[in-house]
Amino acid sequence: MISSWTCPLPLRNYPTIVMGHGSGGKMMSDLIQHLFTPLLKNDLLEQLGDSTVIDFARFANGHQPSAISHQRLAFTTDSFVISPLIFPGGDIGELAVNGTVNDLAMSGAKPLFLSAGFILEEGLPMETLGRIAASVAAACRAANVQLVAGDTKVVNKGHGDGLYINTSGIGVIPPNVNIAPNRAQAGDVVIVSGTMGDHGMAIMSVREGLEFETPIKSDTAPLNGLVEAMLAASPQIHCLRDATRGGLAAVLNELASASNIGIEFDERQIPVRPEVHAACEMLGLDPFYVANEGKLVAMIPGAESESVLAAMRAHPLGKEAARIGSVVDDHHGLVVARTGIGGARVVDLPAGELLPRIC
Amino acid sequence: MISSWTCPLPLRNYPTIVMGHGSGGKMMSDLIQHLFTPLLKNDLLEQLGDSTVIDFARFANGHQPSAISHQRLAFTTDSFVISPLIFPGGDIGELAVNGTVNDLAMSGAKPLFLSAGFILEEGLPMETLGRIAASVAAACRAANVQLVAGDTKVVNKGHGDGLYINTSGIGVIPPNVNIAPNRAQAGDVVIVSGTMGDHGMAIMSVREGLEFETPIKSDTAPLNGLVEAMLAASPQIHCLRDATRGGLAAVLNELASASNIGIEFDERQIPVRPEVHAACEMLGLDPFYVANEGKLVAMIPGAESESVLAAMRAHPLGKEAARIGSVVDDHHGLVVARTGIGGARVVDLPAGELLPRIC
Repeated sequence: MISSWTCPLPLRNYPTIVMGHGSGGKMMSDLIQHLFTPLLKNDLLEQLGDSTVIDFARFANGHQPSAISHQRLAFTTDSFVISPLIFPGGDIGELAVNGTVNDLAMSGAKPLFLSAGFILEEGLPMETLGRIAASVAAACRAANVQLVAGDTKVVNKGHGDGLYINTSGIGVIPPNVNIAPNRAQAGDVVIVSGTMGDHGMAIMSVREGLEFETPIKSDTAPLNGLVEAMLAASPQIHCLRDATRGGLAAVLNELASASNIGIEFDERQIPVRPEVHAACEMLGLDPFYVANEGKLVAMIPGAESESVLAAMRAHPLGKEAARIGSVVDDHHGLVVARTGIGGARVVDLPAGELLPRIC
Repeated sequence: MISSWTCPLPLRNYPTIVMGHGSGGKMMSDLIQHLFTPLLKNDLLEQLGDSTVIDFARFANGHQPSAISHQRLAFTTDSFVISPLIFPGGDIGELAVNGTVNDLAMSGAKPLFLSAGFILEEGLPMETLGRIAASVAAACRAANVQLVAGDTKVVNKGHGDGLYINTSGIGVIPPNVNIAPNRAQAGDVVIVSGTMGDHGMAIMSVREGLEFETPIKSDTAPLNGLVEAMLAASPQIHCLRDATRGGLAAVLNELASASNIGIEFDERQIPVRPEVHAACEMLGLDPFYVANEGKLVAMIPGAESESVLAAMRAHPLGKEAARIGSVVDDHHGLVVARTGIGGARVVDLPAGELLPRIC
């Protein structure tokens, strides 16, 4: 059953997996592009969106002529291995629900059904599992989705980290919506839904034992309601992405590459909380590379952008939404930041590990 | 965020998770019934099938009046934590694909789309990951499904066991099929698709360093083709279940309980390979409690059973299919074995750990 397999060139510098392979940057991208994609590629997997859009007209028609045709489902999966399990502003259970809800919403889908696979480590206190399962349930109610399938496995003590959760999800995409990473066009306005870096710095400040006057909390939240409000303002949204691992910088680079366009943004327009800014300075981190768990980046045609921005600001999760830049027909595939002092710099994909086990 | 949670009575004997909570027996059933279900219950989750049947007519109609109505999808999730990663007859990659394909097929669905979430441990050889990803790809081709969504996370050395894989899957259920754990009826014939205990004893003999003249191999296989052949012979199948964790004994008990009927079977009718039988004797195990990864149990109306059995025997994965017993309107919820010497005994759900990390 196991085929012979030869490690491709770009991965040979790393004969074993290192933490950086999971951090949402260049190393993870290399692993996906050079190991997984050549073996597993098909046109659906190649969409590279936060969730995969399945047009049942193409697949189920032969099987079921009259039924599912013209219906598009979004399907996504995500594993959560965050350490610590419980952190300021949330816990792994809430994060696992919101993460998958958000991946579905980033295709413009209405999230409907979730599955949850729990990998429990021997010795996990029953009390902790109970609290986290309760948190999963509360997050499902808040996001208006149903958990409909589950699985539980137990691994020996020392072979896990309390618990890992995988959530997969299914949503339905409204007929007039067409959102994909390769749809950004010159003239699109780039909008973020709120402050950047909160989740990553909340985790980091716990791990580093940092204390601030205003404690930094994770921004974990379900974004499907916000996306619904944005689509009601205009269904002409081109790209949506939640800025998780690798932060804003990773999202902008992925979209610039997928759409083969350039992106310019003004650093000063990006909302960052003062305490997050301070923590980043202290640790030598750039908030544009830090993970968020309740913020999205949108690419919207210029003519539609004001109405969408207004709809976002009217929503509790988009109050601090800001226009940060635009898509240009120049330096294709590159993201350029205009700096406070009138200069410009290329903002690259992070290389490897900035902050492992962040989600 | 986290609600207060109080450990329910039946779980209080175990203040922490132990290996038995993951072994498919009574302890796992207690954990699901007393911890997860009270928090998460909804009517879809309560189907308790190998996969959950979602009738989109109920959910998507308000949203999408003309499209998905009358279409039923099956949705399932499963995490794979087997140790060792590579074993006689297969590896974790093939197992992860077949396991989810089979869970979908057990609803009578045609499996179409899979997701895969990889949790990699720092230090995993790139070569091992490559071989297992190749095995995932080969298993998808063999089962005629597409892997359409993926995720990769990395955990620190000492917090995993090489790799864990979660696979979730979506299938479409043909309109004339109605298979569910609660549909067994008195008069149904109980059929198994082949020999019992091969997968579990293959893993066990590696772990225990046992050697036999004929090496025991895992039976991991995708059962969707076999189910398709069975449904072509008769769509009137009442129950299907693949006999994984907890083996045949667990499946029969779950179906007896879900359908509130009695099951009687004849031990001598159950196909067991001689080498599996020998290994079980040596280790003091009962092959009816040992996991399979390519075998199913079916409950079929008596009148239809011969044609279905013939169709099974004509399929490469059902050559050794056998009628082992029947559903009776007696001792509801209980499974009774007729023994070789004319006696009878109740075959209970296994309690806890028989063989941990089996899948």
